[in-house]
Amino acid sequence: MKIIDGKSISNLIKQEIKLEVDTIISKGEKPPHLAAVIVGNDGASLTYVASKVKSCQQIGFNSTLVKLSADILESELLKKIQELNNNDEIDGFIVQLPLPKHIDEEKVVLAIDPNKDVDGFHPTNFGKMALNMKTFIPATPYGIMELLKRYEIDTVGKHTVVIGRSHIVGRPISILMNSKGNPGDSTVTVVHSRTKNLEEFTKNADIIISALGIPDFLKSNMIKKGVVIIDVGITRVKDDNHPKGYVIKGDVDFNSVKSKVSYITPVPGGVGPMTIAMLLKNTLLSREFNS
Amino acid sequence: MKIIDGKSISNLIKQEIKLEVDTIISKGEKPPHLAAVIVGNDGASLTYVASKVKSCQQIGFNSTLVKLSADILESELLKKIQELNNNDEIDGFIVQLPLPKHIDEEKVVLAIDPNKDVDGFHPTNFGKMALNMKTFIPATPYGIMELLKRYEIDTVGKHTVVIGRSHIVGRPISILMNSKGNPGDSTVTVVHSRTKNLEEFTKNADIIISALGIPDFLKSNMIKKGVVIIDVGITRVKDDNHPKGYVIKGDVDFNSVKSKVSYITPVPGGVGPMTIAMLLKNTLLSREFNS
Repeated sequence: MKIIDGKSISNLIKQEIKLEVDTIISKGEKPPHLAAVIVGNDGASLTYVASKVKSCQQIGFNSTLVKLSADILESELLKKIQELNNNDEIDGFIVQLPLPKHIDEEKVVLAIDPNKDVDGFHPTNFGKMALNMKTFIPATPYGIMELLKRYEIDTVGKHTVVIGRSHIVGRPISILMNSKGNPGDSTVTVVHSRTKNLEEFTKNADIIISALGIPDFLKSNMIKKGVVIIDVGITRVKDDNHPKGYVIKGDVDFNSVKSKVSYITPVPGGVGPMTIAMLLKNTLLSREFNS
Repeated sequence: MKIIDGKSISNLIKQEIKLEVDTIISKGEKPPHLAAVIVGNDGASLTYVASKVKSCQQIGFNSTLVKLSADILESELLKKIQELNNNDEIDGFIVQLPLPKHIDEEKVVLAIDPNKDVDGFHPTNFGKMALNMKTFIPATPYGIMELLKRYEIDTVGKHTVVIGRSHIVGRPISILMNSKGNPGDSTVTVVHSRTKNLEEFTKNADIIISALGIPDFLKSNMIKKGVVIIDVGITRVKDDNHPKGYVIKGDVDFNSVKSKVSYITPVPGGVGPMTIAMLLKNTLLSREFNS
C-alpha cells in the first residue's frame, strides 16, 4: 500500500509555479493576478478564500479579495462580475460558492468571461474540456489527474469506476479519464444514487474515484486486491474529542481497505490540498489567455 | 424481439413539428428558418444537406442553402458565418462537416453563435448539455434519447454500455444516459479502442449503444439475453449485387443477435432517420432563443 501524498505534490506544484512567476518578473512582466469574490460570512468559505489568497502571495501572484455583503442584490453582484471581466489588471477570478439563496448561481457562472473563469465552471469551458480543447479544468478533477500523473499510475485500458456524477467532480473526472492520454484512456463507469448493485462495479474496478460525500462508505468487501483509490470525500463528522469539535472524513474506510489497495489518497492530505495548486495553475493559464 | 422503428417515429415527430409551425403561422408569426452551409461537392454531404432542406419544406420551415466552392478561403467562410450570426432572418444554421482539409473545423465551430448552433457542436452548447442547462442536443444522441422515450424503455438504474467515445455520439450519449431522468439515470460505461476485454462489459449490459463504425462487430456471444441494442453504425460496404454498388451496415450483426435482444434499432431505418427530425426540433428551439 502506497500513500498518494497530495500535500507534498501540491507544494511541489506551487514551487514550480513560483519558478515560472520568477521568470515572468525577471523579464519585467506582470505576474498573474487572481481575484476572489466572496459573498457573506460563511466560515468555511472565508477559510477557503483566505487560503487561496495566501497561496497567491506565497508564489508571487497578485491577488485581490472582493468581500461583498450577504444581502447584496443579484444585479449588483452581476455588475461586479462585469467589472472584473473588463478589468485588464485581473487575469482570472473566482466567485466562491455556495452563494446566498436569493442569488441564482447559474446566472452568476454564466456571467463570468470564460477566459477568466479559472474555476472552469462556465459551460464553454466545460464543453471545451469535454471536446479536448485547451481550457481551464475544474480544480478537483484536475488535481486528481495530476496526482495520477506524478505517481505514474498507468490508467490506459484500466477499468475506472467513478462514484458520483456531480458537475464539479464526478462528471468532469469521468470525461477526463475516458479521454485520450495517460492518465486517461480508461474504460470508465459512472455509478450514482440510482445504480443497482454498486458493489458489482466497484469490485471489478482497477481504479476507484469516489466523490460521494458519505463517510467510510467504501469498505474492503467492495473492492478487489491491488485497486487504486482516489478519495474525494470531505465530510465534517462531529467529534467531541477533537478540539475543533469535528473531524474530516473521506468516503473510504481507510482501515478497512488499506491492506488491499495498491495506492490510496488519505483524507485529509490527498486530493484536498491539490485543489488550490490547480487553481493557481489555471490562473497561470488565464494570464496567457488574457495577454 | 421488437424493432425500434426510427423511420415511423421520425415521421411522427415531423408531423408534430408541422402542427407547431401551423400554429405559429396561424398567429401571423414567421416560421423557423434553417440555413445550411455546404462547402465543396462531396456526394454524401450534398445528399444529407438536400434532405435537410427538403424536410424543412415538408414541415413549413423556411430554409436557405448556402453553397460555397471547395477552394473557399477559411477567412471567407468565417465571414459568411458572421453574416449568418448577424442575420435576424435566420434562427439556426449548420455547417455541413467534413470541411476541406485547408479549413480548421474547430475554428469554424467556435465561430458559430451558440444560440444558432442547431447541430449542438459548439463547446458552450456541449457544456450546457453536460451541466443540464436548456440547450441544443446533437442530433444523433438526441434521436437516441427520443427513441428510448417513445418506446418507453426504462433506463433508470440499468447498465448502459456505450461503444465509442466520439464527440458527436459516444461522449454526449454517455452523459445524457447518465443524467437524471428517464431516459437517463443509467449506470453508464464507455468502452473504446483502448478497452481490454470489451465483451466482459457488453455481456453485462442491459442497454448497448454502439457507435463504432465496424460492420457486424457485435455478435450474439457478446451480449446477454433481453438486452436493448441501439445501433448507431452506418458504414458503406461494397456490394456489387446492389444497384448502388454498396449496402449500409450497422455495428451489429442483426441475424446473430436477433433472437437474444428485447429491442433493437435496424440499420437502415433506426437511428439514421431520427437525426433530421431532431435537427428540426433544435431549429424550432433556436427560434425561441432568437426571438
